[in-house]
Amino acid sequence: MKKPLILLTNDDGITAPGLRSLIQFMKEIADVVVVAPDSPQSGMGHAITIDNTLYSKKVIIDKEKGAPLEYSCSGTPADCVKLGLQEILNKRPDMVVSGINHGSNSSINVIYSGTMSAAIEAGIEGIPAIGFSLCDYAWNADFSAVGDFAKKIVLEALKNGIPSGTVLNVNIPKTDGLPPKGIKVCRQAKANWKERFDKRTSPTGKEYYWLTGEFELLDKGEDTDEHALSQGYISMVPTQFDLTAHHTIQHINNWHLNE
Amino acid sequence: MKKPLILLTNDDGITAPGLRSLIQFMKEIADVVVVAPDSPQSGMGHAITIDNTLYSKKVIIDKEKGAPLEYSCSGTPADCVKLGLQEILNKRPDMVVSGINHGSNSSINVIYSGTMSAAIEAGIEGIPAIGFSLCDYAWNADFSAVGDFAKKIVLEALKNGIPSGTVLNVNIPKTDGLPPKGIKVCRQAKANWKERFDKRTSPTGKEYYWLTGEFELLDKGEDTDEHALSQGYISMVPTQFDLTAHHTIQHINNWHLNE
Repeated sequence: MKKPLILLTNDDGITAPGLRSLIQFMKEIADVVVVAPDSPQSGMGHAITIDNTLYSKKVIIDKEKGAPLEYSCSGTPADCVKLGLQEILNKRPDMVVSGINHGSNSSINVIYSGTMSAAIEAGIEGIPAIGFSLCDYAWNADFSAVGDFAKKIVLEALKNGIPSGTVLNVNIPKTDGLPPKGIKVCRQAKANWKERFDKRTSPTGKEYYWLTGEFELLDKGEDTDEHALSQGYISMVPTQFDLTAHHTIQHINNWHLNE
Repeated sequence: MKKPLILLTNDDGITAPGLRSLIQFMKEIADVVVVAPDSPQSGMGHAITIDNTLYSKKVIIDKEKGAPLEYSCSGTPADCVKLGLQEILNKRPDMVVSGINHGSNSSINVIYSGTMSAAIEAGIEGIPAIGFSLCDYAWNADFSAVGDFAKKIVLEALKNGIPSGTVLNVNIPKTDGLPPKGIKVCRQAKANWKERFDKRTSPTGKEYYWLTGEFELLDKGEDTDEHALSQGYISMVPTQFDLTAHHTIQHINNWHLNE
């Protein structure tokens, strides 16, 4: 059987251990090409580079454990996917896989996630796509328990097909060496970040801020990604880019907008 | 009656004519405070500044026609909303209004939109929010026909309440001086951008790219924002930040993920 072709990217940058692990896992089941940011792009959301130039070059990060073909790109994760599909690959890949992110992209984090924006960009282009994130922000996090699950999810997605207009947001709990208990298909939990701005003064007397905050879960549902993760399961949320709140249209049509 | 308090922002930057027009319109019906990016942030999607410092300062852009209180911020539109809510305002605003964007944020453009990311950020915080965009990219676009409609939409939204978990994405057609025909509540049209990368060589011999592309409408529905705009109507799409594709969960549960 011909191996599938998978385009890999991430938002932590091309040298991030999460991506390097993903390459090794995916090489076992697919031909892989990497197009990833040349520097960390966390929190970039679905940014694209429209009023600036993009650089891209062929790189070798790890001759033995890397992918046969890797490109770094000066842009965002969404830029990497656009460039990979349009300029670098000479055929349509069977899938785009993004990650493995260093840190959670569950619940409301999906909105701010560069990892997921890469997957969504592929989905918009009609290509099946999955974003993987490990709920551990450490640069030297242990990705070894992720491999078998990631391969299983990718193979099942290739076999069954991801529903049109949807990409998968997969989060893996931090389980300190133990394997996750299994995989649960979930909905995105309601949550937000309680922001706090840490106000400081620069050496030249200019005031500046650091954005900090605490995650606030507003959802007690047992069908959410947060609940699955808290129980030691991998969460998998089918994520769509039609943002229309269809169920509210009728209600809003009762407003007096055209009188 | 006490005037509502509205926080205004945008993604084209604090000096953009679209925001300056919005300030004048909103001042007629509300107390306004402006917190907007100090430089253009188009295409920033839902980016936030997490590994960098944020600067903000009180500014006067236009003593007569401006807002009594305006702050510029070095961050993204989502940063501006976070900073405005957390640090600058001393009470919760009744609404956050973003725009008026120079250019369309209809259909799939909502995903890349800094204007809408500001509205969505407010929505996540539980504050009613609206993003306005004029389908005209010109810096000197004519915003005069927008005023009455924008005020009507804001007042109706304040009166009726925007459904929870939802913000409004309002796009105004370019009608060359004529008023739009009315307002239609719509769904987001299916579309994508057919990208093309314009490859060039820098003076020092380095290859670089410009991202260009053509908008490709994939949707013939008459209930879409694109259709309303093409007929000369203002489109209003209730837009949600629960990205779960709820209707696909049952299907994916049939995959063999835990065997």
